[in-house]
Amino acid sequence: MDYQSLIRDIPDFPKPGIIFKDITPLLANAEALDAVIKDMAAPFKDQKIDLVVGIESRGFIFGPGVARQLGCGFAPVRKPGKLPYHTHSLTYDLEYGTDTLEIHVDAVVKDHRVLIIDDLLATGGTAEAAGKLIAKIDGIVVGFGFVIELGFLNGREKLGNTQVESLINYT
Amino acid sequence: MDYQSLIRDIPDFPKPGIIFKDITPLLANAEALDAVIKDMAAPFKDQKIDLVVGIESRGFIFGPGVARQLGCGFAPVRKPGKLPYHTHSLTYDLEYGTDTLEIHVDAVVKDHRVLIIDDLLATGGTAEAAGKLIAKIDGIVVGFGFVIELGFLNGREKLGNTQVESLINYT
Repeated sequence: MDYQSLIRDIPDFPKPGIIFKDITPLLANAEALDAVIKDMAAPFKDQKIDLVVGIESRGFIFGPGVARQLGCGFAPVRKPGKLPYHTHSLTYDLEYGTDTLEIHVDAVVKDHRVLIIDDLLATGGTAEAAGKLIAKIDGIVVGFGFVIELGFLNGREKLGNTQVESLINYT
Repeated sequence: MDYQSLIRDIPDFPKPGIIFKDITPLLANAEALDAVIKDMAAPFKDQKIDLVVGIESRGFIFGPGVARQLGCGFAPVRKPGKLPYHTHSLTYDLEYGTDTLEIHVDAVVKDHRVLIIDDLLATGGTAEAAGKLIAKIDGIVVGFGFVIELGFLNGREKLGNTQVESLINYT
């Protein structure tokens, strides 16, 4: 399916000089929404995934659907203070400043195989941090799945030898 | 399915005196995750829904799945500054202070039939605001669907004669 025609470029969002990839036209298209979930799950069909983790907040849009396709459950990774139960947190560097992610301490069963889902792979800092959080609670990060990859930012280099899949790659 | 046994009570979150309903055990259960999406969609099967709208951010977890079940697209309603394209916004009263929601101006086709999805119906202020935003861009709000309803807060009274469905009701 031609997903790229359903991505809208928004210049200077959220900051001047950045071209934001707006996925809302894709989400609004019933056929594309269904196909994108199936296509994100497909590369991991034989990977015996036990849990899909989605990163706040656009990862929540795709993660639960991928989990249903793979027949497993879903767990959220969130910004600080949003998860109600006991959490582990990890602070990581951004281009300017830092950001923090949290996960429930009981989100992953030890040695369960985890797939991390988000809408976009840019520099890879957020995905890398999510992977470290999963490892911290003894999960095994089997792969990362994205709708969009900004390949020119080389984000997948931060994700080591783990399987990384994306549906649209801007190289 | 006994969803209620998969909801965890967290006392004093996010504020003292509030018992937060934690849905993460439900999400982690593959069978429950799949069933909850199907059960949220079921009451609206014959309502000719054109679009499902999900409210940030836990509405993102359920909304796209309900949309796929109903064969339609999905649109997000978000907190201020998060949506990249032109938006309409609406500020509404909370118990203490106010909150604001935004929707893309092109999120709904005129006279399309819209189902609004969120995880929780409490006092109904947020759902009511989302409904007003849909009406502002000429959509028809056909119904509201929630996983959990805090019935003792009478939130559905704010939603007029619109169809309101929830899977778990704490009366």
